[in-house]
Amino acid sequence: MKDPLVLFMPSGKRGRFPVGTPVLEAARQLGVYVESVCGSRATCGRCQISVQEGHFAKHGITSSHDHLSRIGPKEERYDRVRSLPEGRRLSCSALILGDLVIDVPQDTVINAQVVRKAADERVFDRNAALRMCYVEVEEPDMEKPLGDLDRLKAALAADWHFDDLDVDFHLIPKVQSILRKGEWKVTAAIHKDREDERPRLVALYPGLKNEAYGIACDIGSTTIAMHLSSLLSGRTVASAGTSNPQIRFGEDLMSRVSYVMMNPDGREAMTLAVREALNGLIDKVCAEGGVSRGDILDSVFVGNPIMHHLFLGIDPTELGGAPFALAVSGAVRVKSSQIGLPMNEGTRTYVLPCIAGHVGADAAGATLSEGPHRQDEMMLLVDIGTNAEIVLGNSSRVVAASSPTGPAFEGAEISSGQRAAPGAIERVRIDPLTLEPRFRVIGVEQWSDEPGFAEAAAATGVTGICGSGIIEVIAEMYLAGIISEDGVVDGALAERSPRILQNGRTFSYLLHDGEQRLTVTQNDVRAIQLAKAALYAGVKLLMDKQGVTQVDRIGLAGAFGTFIDPKYAMVLGLIPDCDLSRVKAVGNAAGTGARMCLLNREYRREIEETVRKIDKIETALEPRFQEHFVAAMALPNKIDAFPHLAAVVTLPERKVLADAVDGGRRRRRGRE
Amino acid sequence: MKDPLVLFMPSGKRGRFPVGTPVLEAARQLGVYVESVCGSRATCGRCQISVQEGHFAKHGITSSHDHLSRIGPKEERYDRVRSLPEGRRLSCSALILGDLVIDVPQDTVINAQVVRKAADERVFDRNAALRMCYVEVEEPDMEKPLGDLDRLKAALAADWHFDDLDVDFHLIPKVQSILRKGEWKVTAAIHKDREDERPRLVALYPGLKNEAYGIACDIGSTTIAMHLSSLLSGRTVASAGTSNPQIRFGEDLMSRVSYVMMNPDGREAMTLAVREALNGLIDKVCAEGGVSRGDILDSVFVGNPIMHHLFLGIDPTELGGAPFALAVSGAVRVKSSQIGLPMNEGTRTYVLPCIAGHVGADAAGATLSEGPHRQDEMMLLVDIGTNAEIVLGNSSRVVAASSPTGPAFEGAEISSGQRAAPGAIERVRIDPLTLEPRFRVIGVEQWSDEPGFAEAAAATGVTGICGSGIIEVIAEMYLAGIISEDGVVDGALAERSPRILQNGRTFSYLLHDGEQRLTVTQNDVRAIQLAKAALYAGVKLLMDKQGVTQVDRIGLAGAFGTFIDPKYAMVLGLIPDCDLSRVKAVGNAAGTGARMCLLNREYRREIEETVRKIDKIETALEPRFQEHFVAAMALPNKIDAFPHLAAVVTLPERKVLADAVDGGRRRRRGRE
Repeated sequence: MKDPLVLFMPSGKRGRFPVGTPVLEAARQLGVYVESVCGSRATCGRCQISVQEGHFAKHGITSSHDHLSRIGPKEERYDRVRSLPEGRRLSCSALILGDLVIDVPQDTVINAQVVRKAADERVFDRNAALRMCYVEVEEPDMEKPLGDLDRLKAALAADWHFDDLDVDFHLIPKVQSILRKGEWKVTAAIHKDREDERPRLVALYPGLKNEAYGIACDIGSTTIAMHLSSLLSGRTVASAGTSNPQIRFGEDLMSRVSYVMMNPDGREAMTLAVREALNGLIDKVCAEGGVSRGDILDSVFVGNPIMHHLFLGIDPTELGGAPFALAVSGAVRVKSSQIGLPMNEGTRTYVLPCIAGHVGADAAGATLSEGPHRQDEMMLLVDIGTNAEIVLGNSSRVVAASSPTGPAFEGAEISSGQRAAPGAIERVRIDPLTLEPRFRVIGVEQWSDEPGFAEAAAATGVTGICGSGIIEVIAEMYLAGIISEDGVVDGALAERSPRILQNGRTFSYLLHDGEQRLTVTQNDVRAIQLAKAALYAGVKLLMDKQGVTQVDRIGLAGAFGTFIDPKYAMVLGLIPDCDLSRVKAVGNAAGTGARMCLLNREYRREIEETVRKIDKIETALEPRFQEHFVAAMALPNKIDAFPHLAAVVTLPERKVLADAVDGGRRRRRGRE
Repeated sequence: MKDPLVLFMPSGKRGRFPVGTPVLEAARQLGVYVESVCGSRATCGRCQISVQEGHFAKHGITSSHDHLSRIGPKEERYDRVRSLPEGRRLSCSALILGDLVIDVPQDTVINAQVVRKAADERVFDRNAALRMCYVEVEEPDMEKPLGDLDRLKAALAADWHFDDLDVDFHLIPKVQSILRKGEWKVTAAIHKDREDERPRLVALYPGLKNEAYGIACDIGSTTIAMHLSSLLSGRTVASAGTSNPQIRFGEDLMSRVSYVMMNPDGREAMTLAVREALNGLIDKVCAEGGVSRGDILDSVFVGNPIMHHLFLGIDPTELGGAPFALAVSGAVRVKSSQIGLPMNEGTRTYVLPCIAGHVGADAAGATLSEGPHRQDEMMLLVDIGTNAEIVLGNSSRVVAASSPTGPAFEGAEISSGQRAAPGAIERVRIDPLTLEPRFRVIGVEQWSDEPGFAEAAAATGVTGICGSGIIEVIAEMYLAGIISEDGVVDGALAERSPRILQNGRTFSYLLHDGEQRLTVTQNDVRAIQLAKAALYAGVKLLMDKQGVTQVDRIGLAGAFGTFIDPKYAMVLGLIPDCDLSRVKAVGNAAGTGARMCLLNREYRREIEETVRKIDKIETALEPRFQEHFVAAMALPNKIDAFPHLAAVVTLPERKVLADAVDGGRRRRRGRE
């Protein structure tokens, strides 16, 4: 007679266990992560599971509730005091009696914690670096004069197999009073990130402490986003964002590096500024989640290299010029209190590795989240900012680079450009016959040609064009024939439409004539062309390295990626041709990667290993960059075909204007 | 033809190595510790050795300078620039060509450092937790965008086999400027204490840094003693001591615990006081040794449990009453800056384990230094203070206890008692016929009956009797028949000598009649009897546990042990009978133990392991304590024989006085 077969879902891990084995024990043996704080005392309620009833032909077993032992007195007490949801059992108490298919719920909620489900919330397997371990400690005894801490360590070794723990020094003066307050029952917070690292006692609570939190944070040059998650349930209990106060020292990254180079206290001031903002965000997520700062025990940060350096208090000057040497590229581990983020005294901070001098821990986080290295398809991951960070690869190989796109996509260097804020034009359509535009403004429901727009827009005004609006208006201008594939505004159209305005030797397009007159000038088009050509040339270099002419999937990360319409991005030739249904905004993928590392230390190993293996391309050193760049100045591209795009969008006939060259014809052939 | 045989002295380790092997490499393979900072570049000069010339019949080899390769250009350059002492070679450069007997000098002195040879200086094999490692780091390269720190780590892995070092966070913002200042040549200070611990970069210097220091310190309740040693040569370069400023909160340990219990800020004030004193001592040894505070990279501390707790900022209240629970008994590791001792930011502190609630890290240090656990003889180790810490054992088993001797031995509770200071009587002889005393005073050459004494003593006065003086005067009073074996001052002698004075119902002995009248009263004798009985009873309990009636060796630790005459201590029955030539003052053995742990991390393992195995006896819980105590009230003892003592000292005939009992006769029999 074989031992019962037990399957754990969703992982599908399976094994046979003797009758009478606690389900929790079986899960542990199979490496299925089931949380438990109380050490199988049936008091924390963290180890809940449920049973799938029925016959599972694929596995040849019948699973039933009856294949678990009956509810015993301890489990019954838990149910009475804390209430066990219908169908749930405590896996520490339920013993295996027969074949079972066990569901490990990813959303076990204790103490009715406040849960705010963020848009990008994904559920991950958990294996946090921080564990909560309840123990009952022997009382002092004159005959065995081991210290209080040493008896606590002995209990943690006996019950939790943490042999010879290291102990954060700040706990040593407190251990006696905590043990006595808890009447020799305490919950130890044990931090262990790497396998070859000694586990470390970082916090200690009297009695059963059934919760612990962590923060995951993406420090962007413009925006900082933070999530507060339960390390035990994995749930995100609060999220908050704020603008990066370093903006007052410089809008873009390079101006911040310059500020450091010009001002003796510049680095310190910017470090202080970002840490103050982070402390404010910590207070905010704590207030929203109803969590005490002291209960945050772990934290993970990502950011581009310059944000990464300034956050850690490192002078970023070296990143301002070749060879763009990072002070540190590997993952950084530090006590949070050492970087000005006081939470619990034992709180740890983990910062993801940087990929290269211009491809930061944020790109590493996005890579981890989107996982090009985990799939066979060739995936392009682009995070557009002042520097675009570009990752391309699949499970065989991943390559990465950055491209100096400049601030045009963010609305800077554009005559009517502005940040994405109420009043900014974010969507544009142009009638190819009349050349009349219609548009949408942030903060206003209606399109500009719909009834009620004027009234609704009165509050915000129509103040400028934000990044996604610029992409759309220029793409629509191209599709409507207002600009040629070489980006020249067709002055001849001034005869047909009053929206084509002459400015000396060039022409512009009047998008809106209200309180503010919003035009798209020839210079604006040039600025976008330069930016998108830089991005596309970077992508092409990576495609060359990979030896591909097509990508299978595209992920657009960050705020810009969330708001631009992939179709228009492709019309502009900002991204290579691809099935449009496979181009997706991936949101704050960097932040998601940080959250993964917070909840599961195996993801830290995964991204450390992946970053070590990523081939880094320095675009400036690549001889073909110029060539790609020049071809990419055209819309969508002078050389590359866009067959997927051409299938859904009617691309205009080629117009030869001004200094147009013969190369255009070659491109047309390529496109067919 | 066999490979050459190489012997390393003084360890005697030996092995055969292929011709052409560098001597340093051979030493490493045999586990012979030879320091080297420069990584075999022949620049640090730390790896000096010399060759013993001649035929070594015992080993069947002939050793000769010619069996080393000739001095090559690198070694020649070192000799030219830094001067290699006569007969010395650099073992990194000298290659083995034939049989060799190699001397590894323990005193390799570089840069003519100031050396002060302390009285207790012993030379130990070195294997410090802190190593200095010179490396040359690859310059940044855009094609390989590894961070500066990561390239430094790679160099340390390649040259020194430190794979995947941890890095002290404070270095991360500094690493770029240090690397550039050193032109990519730097010396890394790597700390690794335990085998299963990750090595850690704790300090970084531009260029070759050829020195690193450590401090070893014994925090006594009365005196604090500190040594500054080179971690590379092992030499003690400076020593200093100071009185413990906590004395102002309470003379003895228990009064300091009371102070904490009575004053809300008492613990903090005393922690601050001792740390201030330690900082003062650090400045002092640095000034004396010509060493910068920042070059101290490791530190080791010992102290009794209450000093240990107050030093670490732990409330010692629990040590004030049963069950005398230590907050922590195991070794403590902490960054020095965390305990208010700023040196280098990366400096580590190691505190030896405590043995029990009243047997501290100082007793552990003394045990390590004197090594009862390393020998077959039964050794008694006694450190006399307000609490006597007693260790008894041999290589099979070690037992330990403390005995509450009270402050009598330190001169407190004695009518004419005073601390050991100029003016204090420290030696006493009494003529058994005339009962006239002669004595020596601290700070005066002559005995009191020698010419010139009065003049010499005029400066200091004769102000009181210190601990060793009290032991001697009471022992001499007993030997002269002034007091009985039961400690009663014989009033009948007042007829014979004007020095026997009556005070109501008891008598006293007039030791000195000058500006101050110094007498030894009946109460004084009782106080010493109580103290010595407590000590002896503790020793007897340990002898019972070991099942012995004799000890082979006695070590008297601490200042008291240094100054008392073992013979008189034995006459009083303070220590058990033993061959007097085998009773030795061992000086500040606790401090020596600390220094051993500073210079060789293997000693840390040895004492941690030894302390774990020591059986701790709580005297208060032992039923036989009272019995031993009562017997030990007599001089030397009511029951125990002192045959070794009787062989060198004529012990007086028994006098039955006052309440003397019949037990005396039994003792006499036992003594014969």
